[in-house]
Amino acid sequence: MNEIDLLTKALDRRKFLGLTGGLAAAGVAAAACGDPGGTYIKPGQSPNAQAAATPSAASPTPAASGDRPKASGQLAAVRDATLQPADPNPSKTLLIQTKELTHEVAAGVTMDAWTFDGVLPGNVVHVRQGDSIAFTLRNGGTMGHSIDFHAAQTPWNINYKTIIPGQEISFNWKANYPGVFMYHCGTGPVLQHLINGMYGAVVVDPRQPFAPAREYVLVQSEFYLSKGASGNWDGDLARASAVVPDFVVFNGAANQYQQQPLQASPGQLIRLHVVNAGPTLFSAFHVIGAIFDKVHPDGNPANVLRGVQTWTIPPGGGATFELTIPEAGQYPFVTHSFAYTGLGAVGLIEVK
Amino acid sequence: MNEIDLLTKALDRRKFLGLTGGLAAAGVAAAACGDPGGTYIKPGQSPNAQAAATPSAASPTPAASGDRPKASGQLAAVRDATLQPADPNPSKTLLIQTKELTHEVAAGVTMDAWTFDGVLPGNVVHVRQGDSIAFTLRNGGTMGHSIDFHAAQTPWNINYKTIIPGQEISFNWKANYPGVFMYHCGTGPVLQHLINGMYGAVVVDPRQPFAPAREYVLVQSEFYLSKGASGNWDGDLARASAVVPDFVVFNGAANQYQQQPLQASPGQLIRLHVVNAGPTLFSAFHVIGAIFDKVHPDGNPANVLRGVQTWTIPPGGGATFELTIPEAGQYPFVTHSFAYTGLGAVGLIEVK
Amino acid sequence: MNEIDLLTKALDRRKFLGLTGGLAAAGVAAAACGDPGGTYIKPGQSPNAQAAATPSAASPTPAASGDRPKASGQLAAVRDATLQPADPNPSKTLLIQTKELTHEVAAGVTMDAWTFDGVLPGNVVHVRQGDSIAFTLRNGGTMGHSIDFHAAQTPWNINYKTIIPGQEISFNWKANYPGVFMYHCGTGPVLQHLINGMYGAVVVDPRQPFAPAREYVLVQSEFYLSKGASGNWDGDLARASAVVPDFVVFNGAANQYQQQPLQASPGQLIRLHVVNAGPTLFSAFHVIGAIFDKVHPDGNPANVLRGVQTWTIPPGGGATFELTIPEAGQYPFVTHSFAYTGLGAVGLIEVK
Repeated sequence: MNEIDLLTKALDRRKFLGLTGGLAAAGVAAAACGDPGGTYIKPGQSPNAQAAATPSAASPTPAASGDRPKASGQLAAVRDATLQPADPNPSKTLLIQTKELTHEVAAGVTMDAWTFDGVLPGNVVHVRQGDSIAFTLRNGGTMGHSIDFHAAQTPWNINYKTIIPGQEISFNWKANYPGVFMYHCGTGPVLQHLINGMYGAVVVDPRQPFAPAREYVLVQSEFYLSKGASGNWDGDLARASAVVPDFVVFNGAANQYQQQPLQASPGQLIRLHVVNAGPTLFSAFHVIGAIFDKVHPDGNPANVLRGVQTWTIPPGGGATFELTIPEAGQYPFVTHSFAYTGLGAVGLIEVK
Repeated sequence: MNEIDLLTKALDRRKFLGLTGGLAAAGVAAAACGDPGGTYIKPGQSPNAQAAATPSAASPTPAASGDRPKASGQLAAVRDATLQPADPNPSKTLLIQTKELTHEVAAGVTMDAWTFDGVLPGNVVHVRQGDSIAFTLRNGGTMGHSIDFHAAQTPWNINYKTIIPGQEISFNWKANYPGVFMYHCGTGPVLQHLINGMYGAVVVDPRQPFAPAREYVLVQSEFYLSKGASGNWDGDLARASAVVPDFVVFNGAANQYQQQPLQASPGQLIRLHVVNAGPTLFSAFHVIGAIFDKVHPDGNPANVLRGVQTWTIPPGGGATFELTIPEAGQYPFVTHSFAYTGLGAVGLIEVK
Repeated sequence: MNEIDLLTKALDRRKFLGLTGGLAAAGVAAAACGDPGGTYIKPGQSPNAQAAATPSAASPTPAASGDRPKASGQLAAVRDATLQPADPNPSKTLLIQTKELTHEVAAGVTMDAWTFDGVLPGNVVHVRQGDSIAFTLRNGGTMGHSIDFHAAQTPWNINYKTIIPGQEISFNWKANYPGVFMYHCGTGPVLQHLINGMYGAVVVDPRQPFAPAREYVLVQSEFYLSKGASGNWDGDLARASAVVPDFVVFNGAANQYQQQPLQASPGQLIRLHVVNAGPTLFSAFHVIGAIFDKVHPDGNPANVLRGVQTWTIPPGGGATFELTIPEAGQYPFVTHSFAYTGLGAVGLIEVK
């Protein structure tokens, strides 16, 4: 099952097509549509190739359509999106190490990524409002890197400076504001460090805790790729500057939560902590078949909107969403900015 | 009077140009501007052709400038934007039928559209919070279609599945949240069904009704076109994926509310229920010469901002705007994201 | 010190590189990175040229990379961003005169700009809620111009009409809503008048004044340029329609607040009144190393969010940000939409 199958509901459709004449009926439908040449997507045809090829065919970069990365098969691993409990100790020690490694950004598509702690996005940092964090960044890579915590208040020119391979930088910061925040490498060009994977989420529980819920963390981001010397894909600065993404994903890999959906029970409170790591696009975050009972911009409980269908998350921003889904079934989460949705920004919540 | 005339205020200008020497003075102005070759728009020259040609000339798609659709003359019909009263019966029956037909997306520009109920956007569904809707979708077209109500809470894999021509699907849903919501076809590629016209608005009156007002419904959307075999224009998936719109419009046709402005009286409360159907762009909704006294994100009265000049509506989102205009005159409504405004996203409120 | 130096922290880095082997170590880092050919930015190399060249190389317009404007050196002047006190007289007279002149949009890059009052952006208009403004626009330029105050409620077809060179138009308006508002030329094509520089900010103090603070006004905007006959750069309508900016800046010049940072003291309340003049892009406004204690959308104190990392400001919109920075140091303000940040949208707040 792949992303486009999901948005076409091909499996469901094939199932009921079986009841009504199946592909023959579908063929009739396409023919009746006056489109023997195939401009329209026929109900029985996977639009995968067409949709995947489109952005590059239409792209302003010189890359030919055949040069574009193309997902196929299954991801080797799916990132666990569950929010792990925060350590109750208000004095925390945190070590993050930069690490360059191969990352599977879509099924069968590997890139030479730059990461925090060898995972893309970096590990979720989960603390509580008021906590003190004794932080160390260690550069385990081969080029300069740095850290920028949106949850911290600390001088950029001192604590967010670039360190070279083998070096460390340490500083203390305090989680004064509750919410869901981006962290990322701030070494220039920042755009390049972002498109290569150097970001993650910090969740700061409010002093007055939220109600118990099924909690997940999702980091939306874009990938702009070109073929590197190693045979893997690399972040492509020209495509990123022209805002022509190859993939737009949650938690680092296209459509991974179709392969292993997030889980919830009917009527259970679900809380989604969402960061938009960009680097450039705004997210129109939406869950199909559901309505957000509450949106907390930046994840701060002091900020609350009710009954929201779709919320704008700026690049470099975050929001916490609460929803309850009454009925069992599948509920896709997407960015509703649809030129980008089909590039990998479709996951599933399975309610059962 | 066309869109650009309006934004140039050409009629007003011609009127006062007559008082001051008219086109001769304008010619002088242009010459004095050091631009005999015409790079700048001369005050007496309609910038229409230039503005309309620009996006394609600069576009990343191969289409030559001469191939672009171009509005001329008057629309055959203007969509009534008035919000009709909701049926007081809390148990409602709703049938929507998909239908493919020719649609005039700009004056003289016709496309082979895919619609709900033969109108683009589909009919406004107006209900009240708490209403139960016994809904049926009937596929009267020639390809697979489906429904996705942002106002409903219902499983995507069951009730939003694609049905083939001649089939029906029925389910019940309840309008639990007040507001203004998008509905659309969710058959993949969703992007393609959206650019061909399959969306509309649901307005759910809050349990505690809003104050009486002059109420209108506006659906903003983008059109991406290429010439089809029939000689009409079709939704173009490559242009949509590259986000190079030909038209950005309210209620399905470029600049239609210049031809027949929305009406209000001085001092009258005006309420605009606005959906941004996208598929991709964010709307910067604004009324020139006015200030929104209240913005209700997603149309929920629990969400309120005061004194707003311009509000971001994400694709797939909505907002309800309240404003009072003290003085008679013309007040254009636009998306203030100005690369797109001139593509048809200018309507008028006439206050008299 | 230039923008990219800042985002690479090159000065800091060079300083500590000196301690660890400097450029030699940097060279090792780059080589170890498997990139002898220079695809990656080496720690000791200024990515300036590469970053600046990228947007045009990847742009859909035909302009070759060598044709793009390129900053070098220092700006001749830096715009004072300090909010000046409002005249206490509730009856104000305001004259604004349009003026075409040469403007330095980035260090060493001059354009033939169209302005209000000979400055780009136009002067900040600072009034108090309830004030009456007797306003006159005088056209001191060589083509038609007009005014559009987002802070005013007044008929577009009457008071925002275009006047030709030498003419004046006068009308009275009242500042009914507090906040930070855009004003701009509304003569068509509006897009062209915007990209040539015709906009500014109105700050309306609320009746119940904000707490005393260090207050600055920032206007974000994009520049789209092509070489004009005069040898200077001009606003380029094709690039603007295709949304391929050359510069994205605060207060009219790329990176100017790196040359002369905004000033504040540790613990001092800072209030930033920000307008996004667009014309097209949404701003993701953010201060690195800080958190907004309060965001007031549109600058209205009735609208308040707490603990915000990044806020969406639509084109044609505004917001007022309050923050306190506890520690001395440098804190860059940016749009966090990173394809655009490196085009000039990085300023500094220096806290000491």
